[in-house]
Amino acid sequence: MKTRIVTIILCCFTAFNFAQNDESVLKEVYKTSLTNGKSYEWLEHLSNEIGGRLSGSKNAELAVQYTKAELEKLGLDKVWLQPVMVPKWERGEKEKAFFEIAGFVKEVNICALGGSVATAKDGVSAEVVEVHDFEELAALGKEKIEGKIVFYNRPMQADLISTFNAYGGCVNQRYAGAMEAGKYGAVGVIVRSMNLRQDDYPHTGSMSYGDLPINQRIPSAAISTNGAEKLSEALKQNKELKFYFKQNCKQFEDVQSYNVIGEITGHKFPNEYIIVGGHLDSWDLGDGAHDDGAGVVQSMDVLRLLKKSGIKPKRTIRVVLFMNEENGLRGATKYAEVAKAKNENHIFALESDAGGFTPRGFSFAANSTNFDQVLGWKDLFKPYLIHYFELGGSGADVGPLKTDTNVLAGLRPDSQRYFDHHHAANDTFEHVNKRELELGTATMTALVYLFDKYGVNPISGTKKIKD
Amino acid sequence: MKTRIVTIILCCFTAFNFAQNDESVLKEVYKTSLTNGKSYEWLEHLSNEIGGRLSGSKNAELAVQYTKAELEKLGLDKVWLQPVMVPKWERGEKEKAFFEIAGFVKEVNICALGGSVATAKDGVSAEVVEVHDFEELAALGKEKIEGKIVFYNRPMQADLISTFNAYGGCVNQRYAGAMEAGKYGAVGVIVRSMNLRQDDYPHTGSMSYGDLPINQRIPSAAISTNGAEKLSEALKQNKELKFYFKQNCKQFEDVQSYNVIGEITGHKFPNEYIIVGGHLDSWDLGDGAHDDGAGVVQSMDVLRLLKKSGIKPKRTIRVVLFMNEENGLRGATKYAEVAKAKNENHIFALESDAGGFTPRGFSFAANSTNFDQVLGWKDLFKPYLIHYFELGGSGADVGPLKTDTNVLAGLRPDSQRYFDHHHAANDTFEHVNKRELELGTATMTALVYLFDKYGVNPISGTKKIKD
Repeated sequence: MKTRIVTIILCCFTAFNFAQNDESVLKEVYKTSLTNGKSYEWLEHLSNEIGGRLSGSKNAELAVQYTKAELEKLGLDKVWLQPVMVPKWERGEKEKAFFEIAGFVKEVNICALGGSVATAKDGVSAEVVEVHDFEELAALGKEKIEGKIVFYNRPMQADLISTFNAYGGCVNQRYAGAMEAGKYGAVGVIVRSMNLRQDDYPHTGSMSYGDLPINQRIPSAAISTNGAEKLSEALKQNKELKFYFKQNCKQFEDVQSYNVIGEITGHKFPNEYIIVGGHLDSWDLGDGAHDDGAGVVQSMDVLRLLKKSGIKPKRTIRVVLFMNEENGLRGATKYAEVAKAKNENHIFALESDAGGFTPRGFSFAANSTNFDQVLGWKDLFKPYLIHYFELGGSGADVGPLKTDTNVLAGLRPDSQRYFDHHHAANDTFEHVNKRELELGTATMTALVYLFDKYGVNPISGTKKIKD
Repeated sequence: MKTRIVTIILCCFTAFNFAQNDESVLKEVYKTSLTNGKSYEWLEHLSNEIGGRLSGSKNAELAVQYTKAELEKLGLDKVWLQPVMVPKWERGEKEKAFFEIAGFVKEVNICALGGSVATAKDGVSAEVVEVHDFEELAALGKEKIEGKIVFYNRPMQADLISTFNAYGGCVNQRYAGAMEAGKYGAVGVIVRSMNLRQDDYPHTGSMSYGDLPINQRIPSAAISTNGAEKLSEALKQNKELKFYFKQNCKQFEDVQSYNVIGEITGHKFPNEYIIVGGHLDSWDLGDGAHDDGAGVVQSMDVLRLLKKSGIKPKRTIRVVLFMNEENGLRGATKYAEVAKAKNENHIFALESDAGGFTPRGFSFAANSTNFDQVLGWKDLFKPYLIHYFELGGSGADVGPLKTDTNVLAGLRPDSQRYFDHHHAANDTFEHVNKRELELGTATMTALVYLFDKYGVNPISGTKKIKD
């Protein structure tokens, strides 16, 4: 009995010490990020000195060079570029669109969707069929669609708390709208922007023709939410109004680009990898400050904060700045291929690609044992108001690294303002708040620290690691 | 044994039904707020059509009229004005400030603090003593202070997660800086703005001379954070540089104003009052959109949402738009006086006065039984990412209503951006996000609904209410 009591006391004491230490490490990490962070300064350069960084563009190349040079200044163990071929699509001259109603010409703001073909040189003009989903489109059929412009006008669902869920419920209009409408002989597609606000910004984003024959590939553009409302209203007055639009975009041959990678080699388990990343490419309309400049600079600063906070990782910690998340995911695919070929054991991968807003927590892809471990850390984050720890998606770029035993995670910042800026001309530096960005960096660093310290739980076939 | 099982099953069933009902009410409340809220439209008017509403100003009067008229449209049981005399202070002509360094004149942005006296007509020019707290000031004493301008330059502490805590650690410089410096014969006071960002906006706010004799009352102004850094840097180069500033503010006689009150009378316990409120006055530099236009329109919409959601309150629910929170708290004092005189039993009072940002939860002033009750509701709020339920302050306006048995609460929105705008010219409508504002309204409505349904726990001397 005596022995048991002593054991219990010792256990409590150990647990207490251990929690105390993690608490003080997290405190130091948050303090360093908020008083001596570098993410905001990097983001200023990436946004204002470089700007929009679509894959294959000159700016994307500049971003590769800049971030590599900045990582090299941090005294990491290794910094390198990982070659990857990426698609190159250019918007060309600014788009133009209008319709006539009651003798007045109403100009509306549109932008070509990424990957769309151009219109004919003189543009396209046709009657408009407004639909809200593919079922409605199919019900109308070739008879009612042929020769028309299809206008997808299903708004994002405002009563969903996660704006990402609202996005998920709408984005098929943008991604597959032209593919579906092309089958029925439509001559163009106009899609309501993925935006919960009423404003004048059109929001671009990727679209695909799938394996549609070339002659069914029709130009596809996004219209601002205000423009969508105006057009819908006008169609109620005159179903036969003609909509005109012109866009000048073009797809080129693939070009050489790179993932940018930096590494602190683990001193105890160098062959266990933890990565933290965001994507270096962005859409071309804004500066890509939130999507995903924020994730890029936060990820870079995670490694810097680990060093600044005097943490010497047991495992190898990498920052990976992925190229081409927006319209191809080539960088992520390449990184995962190389990791697999080299048999690198990626035990944990964290992505920040949901904007530089106040962090609320993480969503995880993990087995139940590993998720339970994460939940055990939740209280450590309470002083920083980090409360969201849920199973769910992680991130497009880290997704290909999933195994049965590892853990993937995505930082989950407050999502309310994200789609005000997403893929639009107002995704710019001044809409990122320094403290919110830095809190995200600290939150990411804290989780990386914990995974480095405690590892993950391997399942059958893998030796249990004790440390 | 059989009976016990039946009882347990019945209890479970009842508990389940009851929770289900609250869940569906909250869902309806959030949905209505996000799809059919009115707070944003009201805020647009209050900010852009009326603007800054300092107590005693024409705009404050317009805000009283406007909100009363809007409340009257809601079909409440009663809407009225509660008279209260308020102070009237005017800024007058825009302030001016500069210093000379190395032959260059550097203009800096300042603004008079609310309640300050003016400078002499030609302004004041003097050497500057930079200090960081009152201890440093006292150590310098009359010898080093007399005839000088005291420059308080203690920044807000960036590593505190709650920016309100950082504010709390600095604001004595603004409130009492002139009172303290006046004692040592200083001729003016310049205070670093309460702002965590580096920018060019000076932030005003209330200050007091206490019972200092008139001849020791010196002009007091805030300088922008960029200005503070420039001045501090220049003082390192030249300790004898002269700082000039001029301000033209004036205190007038008190004037008549009003709290605006609307009420849905309770159908079961009309003599139990639940109030929800914000303050109608604001500082004069911006439009008072966050401080506290947001709290005003959210509080108004709480009553509207209750009606829209088909909730018929058992208790009397009042919206109270308090006048003069910023520089006197006269409205709050008056409301509490009248409530006491009429022996009105205020069981719960909720204030929103921390900006229209994404809500994170509430802080409560409550006894442990009542707080336990609140904690029992916490899970209902989880789908809306409302996680912060802590004991702490409530709000300046509801504070005077505290009793041993009632509950006071303050809405706690994300605080990271609040002090970017607080009391400055950029506290304007475009910095309020519609969804963030509406989520706040829904969160407030949900809590009011729960307090109305379940009441609070009275202690000894009061009959336990069963409902």
